Amino acid sequence: MRTPVYNRVALIGLGLIASSMFWAMKRGGLAGEVTGYAKSAESRETARRIGLCDRVCESAAEAVEGADLVVLCVPVGAMGAVAADIAPSLMPGATVTDVGSVKRHVIDAVTPHLPDGVHFVPAHPLAGTEHSGPESGFAELFDNRWSLLVPVEGSDPEAVAKLRALWEGMGANVDEMDADHHDLVLAVTSHAPHLIAYTMVGVADDLRRVTDSEVIKYSAAGFRDFTRIAASDPTMWRDVFLTNKDATLEILGRFTEELFALQRAIRTGDGEQLHDYFTRTRAIRRGIIEAGQDTAAPNFGRGGGKE
Amino acid sequence: MRTPVYNRVALIGLGLIASSMFWAMKRGGLAGEVTGYAKSAESRETARRIGLCDRVCESAAEAVEGADLVVLCVPVGAMGAVAADIAPSLMPGATVTDVGSVKRHVIDAVTPHLPDGVHFVPAHPLAGTEHSGPESGFAELFDNRWSLLVPVEGSDPEAVAKLRALWEGMGANVDEMDADHHDLVLAVTSHAPHLIAYTMVGVADDLRRVTDSEVIKYSAAGFRDFTRIAASDPTMWRDVFLTNKDATLEILGRFTEELFALQRAIRTGDGEQLHDYFTRTRAIRRGIIEAGQDTAAPNFGRGGGKE
Repeated sequence: MRTPVYNRVALIGLGLIASSMFWAMKRGGLAGEVTGYAKSAESRETARRIGLCDRVCESAAEAVEGADLVVLCVPVGAMGAVAADIAPSLMPGATVTDVGSVKRHVIDAVTPHLPDGVHFVPAHPLAGTEHSGPESGFAELFDNRWSLLVPVEGSDPEAVAKLRALWEGMGANVDEMDADHHDLVLAVTSHAPHLIAYTMVGVADDLRRVTDSEVIKYSAAGFRDFTRIAASDPTMWRDVFLTNKDATLEILGRFTEELFALQRAIRTGDGEQLHDYFTRTRAIRRGIIEAGQDTAAPNFGRGGGKE
Repeated sequence: MRTPVYNRVALIGLGLIASSMFWAMKRGGLAGEVTGYAKSAESRETARRIGLCDRVCESAAEAVEGADLVVLCVPVGAMGAVAADIAPSLMPGATVTDVGSVKRHVIDAVTPHLPDGVHFVPAHPLAGTEHSGPESGFAELFDNRWSLLVPVEGSDPEAVAKLRALWEGMGANVDEMDADHHDLVLAVTSHAPHLIAYTMVGVADDLRRVTDSEVIKYSAAGFRDFTRIAASDPTMWRDVFLTNKDATLEILGRFTEELFALQRAIRTGDGEQLHDYFTRTRAIRRGIIEAGQDTAAPNFGRGGGKE
């Protein structure tokens, strides 16, 4: 039996990421005991029913008592309030981490509440599905995905190393990055793409001359890949955009500029510009497949491989 | 042994769709003989090597001789020239069809060349992968996907019925639609989403402060689903945008409008508007899964199901 990385882990918030962490920690024998808390009584009840967490508590404060790792798995906009709530119950020497998609805002919101002697090591696993809630988790979610650690000034190297060991034990590759760079990288690779996907799906839903049923029936022609992204949790994403406002708006501005240039090429019939652009973007896709972050299977987004 | 739907089918152009049609026709015993032609000598050589087509011909005219079905599988912009090229060799009573993603332009480009007594029944299978070329095809590509028939004025009902039987035999569901409505529906479900995906991938590639390797490593956060779309064949897509210009630009105009509204909501911190919008788009995704056009497997676009 492998020695656990932490004696007791508290998961605050029991959605997709927390529930996947629970199953991944169990798979790897990474935690002695795992406590959990969710704001909604229904989620706590579901968690108890499916055996999610060794002990589901009736308050966040109760869940963190005696925990040497506390993981904040709530929407980014709720992190500050949760930190304030649990602060008096944190064990001296404990590590607090989070899984939020935005890091500068979380650091600014959480840090002021934490007592001396508690280590704060923000983190962000780059993994997800379109599903949410306590029943959506599975142990393999983080396998071969990246988890980014974003140590703050004065983060204890030993606390960072232990958290790295936990993420690696859950199957993830780990990188370290500073908060502002993280927020810019994620604006490009995640936040702007999500807003664009939401927008495209919203446009299709708005049109009167193309019916909903047509959009749905004929979605395999490309639209479908947008709807998968645009089905992600609304509360989580509202908070992401509100808290990574500047970087997201900057990337969207660049995006609009490029889109206008391509629209002009279409309008003026500049086929060469279009062809050159589309050839260049194809190379990026090859890079992603070579980096093992997707497969080249010709399923065009369908589950189950070659259907 | 099932009676073939056609005695001889000629495939002009040997890319992803044509090669998948060949394997699907073989699987279903739908054609007596299948001839093929590709403009590039290399593609013809590859086709011979892998057994794609019963007979690979050295000219399009030779391939269509004696064929009761001719399928134009070339980029939309090349359809007119190919039709002119094969017209003198078409068998009286033959049906000519195509698989182009735009229908009004193809009808206008092809119809004038076809001799009397030849039936033209345009079609468009809504299926694809990010791969192209003669080696990219597979028999299952059209299974449970839609193929749209777009009969022109005076299309012979019997010719339409036979072509429907072929597509159904290849596993597709078949609908009929008029050309202008087709081009609008596809602008929404396919053409605009593709241009948007190309643009987003192009933006990421342009940025200096976020390196290519970061974009590639961290693509699982959402960006990856765009790159799959943006890896599609550049020539095919250049032609789509140039020939479905008006509908595509109209949808892109609507898209930009909505995107600006959401950007304003982010800038002003209007969380309620964002949350409402994201909740609405989630419902469309459920519709697509219920319609069997995608699975709910939590693989977030990864092949091979739950990894």
